[in-house]
Amino acid sequence: MGQNVSIGQGVTFGHYVIIYDNVHIGDHTSIGDFCIIGERNSNLTAENQPLTKIGNNCMIRSHSIIFSGAILADYVQTGNRACIREESIVGSHSMIGYQSELQGHCIVGDYVRIQSNVSVGKTTKIGDFVYIYPYSVFTNDNTPPSGPKDGPSVGNFTQIGTSCIIMPGAKIGQFSLVGAGSKVSGTFGDDVFVQGSPAKDKGKLSKMPFINHQGKKHYPWPINYDQGLPWQGKDFITWAEEEGLKLPDIF
Amino acid sequence: MGQNVSIGQGVTFGHYVIIYDNVHIGDHTSIGDFCIIGERNSNLTAENQPLTKIGNNCMIRSHSIIFSGAILADYVQTGNRACIREESIVGSHSMIGYQSELQGHCIVGDYVRIQSNVSVGKTTKIGDFVYIYPYSVFTNDNTPPSGPKDGPSVGNFTQIGTSCIIMPGAKIGQFSLVGAGSKVSGTFGDDVFVQGSPAKDKGKLSKMPFINHQGKKHYPWPINYDQGLPWQGKDFITWAEEEGLKLPDIF
Amino acid sequence: MGQNVSIGQGVTFGHYVIIYDNVHIGDHTSIGDFCIIGERNSNLTAENQPLTKIGNNCMIRSHSIIFSGAILADYVQTGNRACIREESIVGSHSMIGYQSELQGHCIVGDYVRIQSNVSVGKTTKIGDFVYIYPYSVFTNDNTPPSGPKDGPSVGNFTQIGTSCIIMPGAKIGQFSLVGAGSKVSGTFGDDVFVQGSPAKDKGKLSKMPFINHQGKKHYPWPINYDQGLPWQGKDFITWAEEEGLKLPDIF
Repeated sequence: MGQNVSIGQGVTFGHYVIIYDNVHIGDHTSIGDFCIIGERNSNLTAENQPLTKIGNNCMIRSHSIIFSGAILADYVQTGNRACIREESIVGSHSMIGYQSELQGHCIVGDYVRIQSNVSVGKTTKIGDFVYIYPYSVFTNDNTPPSGPKDGPSVGNFTQIGTSCIIMPGAKIGQFSLVGAGSKVSGTFGDDVFVQGSPAKDKGKLSKMPFINHQGKKHYPWPINYDQGLPWQGKDFITWAEEEGLKLPDIF
Repeated sequence: MGQNVSIGQGVTFGHYVIIYDNVHIGDHTSIGDFCIIGERNSNLTAENQPLTKIGNNCMIRSHSIIFSGAILADYVQTGNRACIREESIVGSHSMIGYQSELQGHCIVGDYVRIQSNVSVGKTTKIGDFVYIYPYSVFTNDNTPPSGPKDGPSVGNFTQIGTSCIIMPGAKIGQFSLVGAGSKVSGTFGDDVFVQGSPAKDKGKLSKMPFINHQGKKHYPWPINYDQGLPWQGKDFITWAEEEGLKLPDIF
Repeated sequence: MGQNVSIGQGVTFGHYVIIYDNVHIGDHTSIGDFCIIGERNSNLTAENQPLTKIGNNCMIRSHSIIFSGAILADYVQTGNRACIREESIVGSHSMIGYQSELQGHCIVGDYVRIQSNVSVGKTTKIGDFVYIYPYSVFTNDNTPPSGPKDGPSVGNFTQIGTSCIIMPGAKIGQFSLVGAGSKVSGTFGDDVFVQGSPAKDKGKLSKMPFINHQGKKHYPWPINYDQGLPWQGKDFITWAEEEGLKLPDIF
């Protein structure tokens, strides 16, 4: 256990956990076996590592590495072997999945689910309620190798399928779906089905015949899916109104 | 070491191994450094974790995580940092490679070789003698996010190349080959060369000019390759007859 | 700590480090938490593991695994959870990134940067000053499964984008760029932009309008980028002349 470490009430630690200096862990959070919290950024001296902050009620699963300067809100979970690097910010109730990596200076919203083996490049911005599936990668350098980073951005409620490449500076709107295996450059609007390599705008997602297991048109998905989401057991539109969320006219 | 743990004869443990409750490890199995056996499924209480069973003569390499409820037959190997999740079943002599993950409720046959960095989604079914190469991913949700899972299936003796996406519900037959980088949806028969994105049936694999290092037509491959396989040092067809295996007429 | 281990001056070890037999670690090298050095090759008996050699001033980050017989020159770095397998050789100042794997018998030059989640198959050869981006994979078996391995090769100063598949036996020249998501078979020359699936020669890279953040034509990149490179703070061409490096006429 390092110096300047504060541990909340009811925190549990697994075996062989390493906590470096300048770490705050909130109440009722659990830290799994073989985790490293406050891993030192080797670009800084040991004395200059910034505060690492993990919120309340988080679950950090085994072998995860949380670098110095990362900020995790309440109820964040990591899968086993996740890695969250320096100065990245993760919103509440979000999940960074098995073997996934947030490189530095990423911003991830609330209720995001990044599944296994996702690589999120430096300076990427991800909205709220976004789901990202395995092996997708967010890149940030159009003329490699070069210095400044130009991370992509993804709007709220958007789904990014398996094994996608999101190119530097790409911007994807809200309530959209990127099909598995797509390579996405440029700007795409809201409620768009984005697919292909290079990816194209295939039209309005909410008009397309994506039929789910109940035989219903699935998109916009929040009408049909609420597992672990704040509108669970309620109507999504009612919830959105209560929250003052302005919905597009696809609802 | 947890409660209700039974350890066979001649089992060896590396350093810093964690064994949770309700674990059975068979004879002459080795558990590598930093492994977790019986990792708790966080959807269940600590008291309700099912039995984790590892067979005889297995080799679990370092940093691997075997979740509660996983069942590994005899002679199973994992690569370093493999992960086998709840209720997944792995047949005898199979290998789950470096950093590969079997998500929950998967069924993997005998003598399967899953190489490094493969992601096998929930409810996937993989036959016997199947080889899967790096970064291939088996998905299970056609309308993400949604509840029920619809894992793909792969027949015996089939090869899945590098970086393939196997889409939800896809069915690939026996003795087939999926070319590297393919995106596979739908149903494909036996002895088919499957390639492309979207993948297409390119014809009978056994008729195609895939020439190996000995200058021979390579498929059906069991005629030409036997390393670590039960017909090693024998003729494949003789072995198949001894086993009562009904072979297709490509032999 | 195993037998026949020699540790240089000023070496630092993290927590829970495992050093197996027959390991040499050079001066001022640091070994991070949870690392395994000299991991045993399970094809050999414990007594027959070859020498594992890590040079001076290396930084082996946490959870990395260095197999017996790997040779790392001076100033090599690994990202967290890297894996370098038996008989692989890594040149000075090179980086093997987060969760990346060098399989056995690979040769990696000097000042190479392999970023996260790259899989380098057995017998691959990578020149000097090569950068490889996430999820790219180097394969080595054209007729899987078969015995002999036929790893690809990459020339000096070449860039390999994200999520590429480099097929067995592919040869890529110097000062070239492989675009993200490409599937590369066959032979490509120097200063070529290689892109697509299957990848094609799109023309001379140095003639193409890849414009960097300074508004300048970016390739050949060493003119525009020097971070952490031996010509940092100097002119690249001057440095090359000092080194006796013969440059192609694109400079």
